[in-house]
Amino acid sequence: MEFDDEYFMKEALKQARLAFDAGEVPVGAVVVWDNKIIARGHNQVEQLNDSTAHAEMIAMTSAFNQVGSKYLPEAVLYVTVEPCLMCCGATYWAKIGRIVYGAEDVKNGYKKTTGTNWPFHQKAQLTNGVLAAECGQLMKEFFAQLR
Amino acid sequence: MEFDDEYFMKEALKQARLAFDAGEVPVGAVVVWDNKIIARGHNQVEQLNDSTAHAEMIAMTSAFNQVGSKYLPEAVLYVTVEPCLMCCGATYWAKIGRIVYGAEDVKNGYKKTTGTNWPFHQKAQLTNGVLAAECGQLMKEFFAQLR
Repeated sequence: MEFDDEYFMKEALKQARLAFDAGEVPVGAVVVWDNKIIARGHNQVEQLNDSTAHAEMIAMTSAFNQVGSKYLPEAVLYVTVEPCLMCCGATYWAKIGRIVYGAEDVKNGYKKTTGTNWPFHQKAQLTNGVLAAECGQLMKEFFAQLR
Repeated sequence: MEFDDEYFMKEALKQARLAFDAGEVPVGAVVVWDNKIIARGHNQVEQLNDSTAHAEMIAMTSAFNQVGSKYLPEAVLYVTVEPCLMCCGATYWAKIGRIVYGAEDVKNGYKKTTGTNWPFHQKAQLTNGVLAAECGQLMKEFFAQLR
């Protein structure tokens, strides 16, 4: 069975809900290789007391270990929210072949700083807006409850 | 005794030489807090089989643990080579107060992608060119021996 982007984004959303329940900014990610999930990650900045412990970083480091390679050109990274500059840079170094994200992040997404420049690997493909409403709704709920 | 930027950059260079001797792209970093080195890191991409294991990432994660805080606004990050997009993004999240680097990196430095946009924290200060010749020479030697 061939799974589609919505299927994998729903899996990333499950990770985002784990972050939400742990009091973390609710962002989740999965890395897919050959139509299988090989790594998962959710934001753990508070739990690890590490401001770089974003969902994507955790999922990618897990994927390197899983595959035994520091380059993942055939992998797809699904993440519920537009990645930040740091995470885009990480996908560049990892040579992630495709990045799929859900909701836009006007405040901290990569587009704010890079403008029209491309922060991913030259060969990477990008898809956005997959389950954007659900992904964004979880963020809104999180920040609403903080107020 | 008050140490200066050259003193701390020499310590970052020692880290870069550790990377060089291990067959890694020779980049080193130290994090300084209150005139003391609280964390060190060198590039370990090959050793850890993790393309995100840059000197700065390792030094910053070590610094979070050392200080017990995920924000380091009073810290200075010294790194031998112009940081990449990922590492700049990490300094943004960590709210690193000042970044000092040595040699420029035309190929992979942050300026290539961000143009005139500022990828560091809004309040961060930046100094470049400290021991640039020594920092750059080590990189040149490394890439020359690969050919």
